[in-house]
Amino acid sequence: METPTNELEVVKSSDLKPKPVGDQVPFGTVFTDHIFTMDYETGKGWHSPKIVPYGPISLDPAAMIFHYGQTVFEGLKAYHTEDGRVLLFRPEENFKRLNLSSDRLSIPPIDEEQMLEYLTKLVELEKDWVPQTPGTSLYIRPFIISTEPNLAVGPSQTYKLMILLSPVGSYFPGGLQPVIIHVEDQFTRAVKGGTGMAKTAGNYSAGYQAQANAKKAGNADVLWLDGVEKKYIEEVGSMNIFFKINGEVVTPALNGSILKGITRMSVIELLKSWDVPVSERKISIDEIYQAYEDGLVEEIFGTGTAAVISPVGELNWKGQKMIVNNHEIGELSQKIYDTITGVQYGRVEDSFGWTVEVN
Amino acid sequence: METPTNELEVVKSSDLKPKPVGDQVPFGTVFTDHIFTMDYETGKGWHSPKIVPYGPISLDPAAMIFHYGQTVFEGLKAYHTEDGRVLLFRPEENFKRLNLSSDRLSIPPIDEEQMLEYLTKLVELEKDWVPQTPGTSLYIRPFIISTEPNLAVGPSQTYKLMILLSPVGSYFPGGLQPVIIHVEDQFTRAVKGGTGMAKTAGNYSAGYQAQANAKKAGNADVLWLDGVEKKYIEEVGSMNIFFKINGEVVTPALNGSILKGITRMSVIELLKSWDVPVSERKISIDEIYQAYEDGLVEEIFGTGTAAVISPVGELNWKGQKMIVNNHEIGELSQKIYDTITGVQYGRVEDSFGWTVEVN
Repeated sequence: METPTNELEVVKSSDLKPKPVGDQVPFGTVFTDHIFTMDYETGKGWHSPKIVPYGPISLDPAAMIFHYGQTVFEGLKAYHTEDGRVLLFRPEENFKRLNLSSDRLSIPPIDEEQMLEYLTKLVELEKDWVPQTPGTSLYIRPFIISTEPNLAVGPSQTYKLMILLSPVGSYFPGGLQPVIIHVEDQFTRAVKGGTGMAKTAGNYSAGYQAQANAKKAGNADVLWLDGVEKKYIEEVGSMNIFFKINGEVVTPALNGSILKGITRMSVIELLKSWDVPVSERKISIDEIYQAYEDGLVEEIFGTGTAAVISPVGELNWKGQKMIVNNHEIGELSQKIYDTITGVQYGRVEDSFGWTVEVN
Repeated sequence: METPTNELEVVKSSDLKPKPVGDQVPFGTVFTDHIFTMDYETGKGWHSPKIVPYGPISLDPAAMIFHYGQTVFEGLKAYHTEDGRVLLFRPEENFKRLNLSSDRLSIPPIDEEQMLEYLTKLVELEKDWVPQTPGTSLYIRPFIISTEPNLAVGPSQTYKLMILLSPVGSYFPGGLQPVIIHVEDQFTRAVKGGTGMAKTAGNYSAGYQAQANAKKAGNADVLWLDGVEKKYIEEVGSMNIFFKINGEVVTPALNGSILKGITRMSVIELLKSWDVPVSERKISIDEIYQAYEDGLVEEIFGTGTAAVISPVGELNWKGQKMIVNNHEIGELSQKIYDTITGVQYGRVEDSFGWTVEVN
């Protein structure tokens, strides 16, 4: 086994792109001047970390990523504070989860600490790309693809890890906006023993048909139920979900088919610190409907990196409409949103040690 | 809407590769001199069909295929007959299934007849690559990937369809060989409402962990059970499965999570023509075990493009070993194998009209 080269090589772009103005950037379509890349080869390990100009990558058409979907990704953000600092939100948790996902997909693990160092250097170099308009941020997308050109079904012997950076506008330019969600009872996102807890490509396109149907009927997204009984609540679109029922906050327990959201984890820690009762458990859609009928459903909200908190104003389940808090933003939803985004943008003291400053 | 250009453009390679000798080629690692490519763009449809020299493709690192797995594929073969003809086996069924898979993944459909024409032209050009050693063939891999550079979760606005050709050795160089299969009761391949019936990348890497565990324990592959009750038999590895029990042949009915195999379909048609009782229905693993205990399990075999028929000599389920037909090839398995491969290689009259000759 050769000693891998882990010294970061930096090749600067000589042709810098214009940066977008204000917060009118459609999500995920504008990318910065540089990307991070690193390669893996069996027997050699992860090697050749590089920051290079953003540009197309060249792959053999037989590369395994195109055929068998062996791939994982992450999503996090860098925020510009009013006093000119750049903060990352719990980035170590993303690399920890990347390794969890990789394990499920038989992809070799990365060194989490070293990856955080590389990421910090990339964001440092692209600091001027972190937008400053309120509510905007720099979206960060680490991902690993299998690259071996081989049509035999099985784990690849070579991989490429990349990190893309993309300035994004405010998710709610006019302030928090409650959404209408369809409870999906036909299509399945994930099931016990499957890949639901991994952030892997196939989980996402599997939802397109259900999402398209839901949108046609006027919903913003779908709430997925478990794949076995179509009874227990899992997650909404690509967010985790929380319910405030009769003073208590509940969210589905991590069961192997639900993504371990980092915003989810942060919301739970925050509620505990506020002494708001919060529990992670199995929740059936019938239980929610019963609580709704009894007038006990006070707030519903999704949690995720993109929106942080996305209040749910209405749930549609088998023709039944559950209107939550008169389509208005709940008090607790707003408070969580203000606190977490406050920490992210450096306006609220980071008493949890969630942020990592980029020099 | 512009009129799309559907005239096939052919750019011949000036640097032809040496062809492999005999049947010692590892599956899916050697490719011919040319590939077929065609592009899709919303508003323009599928356009610009081309046969071009085999070579790397260039994609934006934000291309959706790398992030959300919106992709489908097919697999079929071309066979060299003793009298010098080249035959395709039921290729129209592959393009029909490609469209079924695409529908599930929200990918725009292709014109099946036109695709068959393009495929025929590609194989015609690469005719000398169809190997002639007995048991060898030219594997054909059509696939579609989503190419729009956009990190927003949702269907791509652009796609690329490609067809790769790869000469492959004999699956069973020493004649049919029964395999040992592990009945998987932890991991799940697919579930009702999911993507199991589609030939899409994510379904394959989802099985790697279970397959690695099974191989460590001396099994060749896994038999998947249903994702809901872990009770009903679905498919084995990337093949469909058949059981001959007390004179009757049974195979799991297509239920939305099982791939609609073309060899499976051909086996059923063949058995019907021979007046062998055959039925497609729900089959539980308990039923198989009971039949085994009662001495009624006569043969088990997998069906797929790669092996055509793969006899199962042993099933391992929760520590129970079921030894089938004394680890020997069943009479019916052998007869089906001989007949289908006979039709494919032009040795047996094609009374079903299954083959398409390439000029």
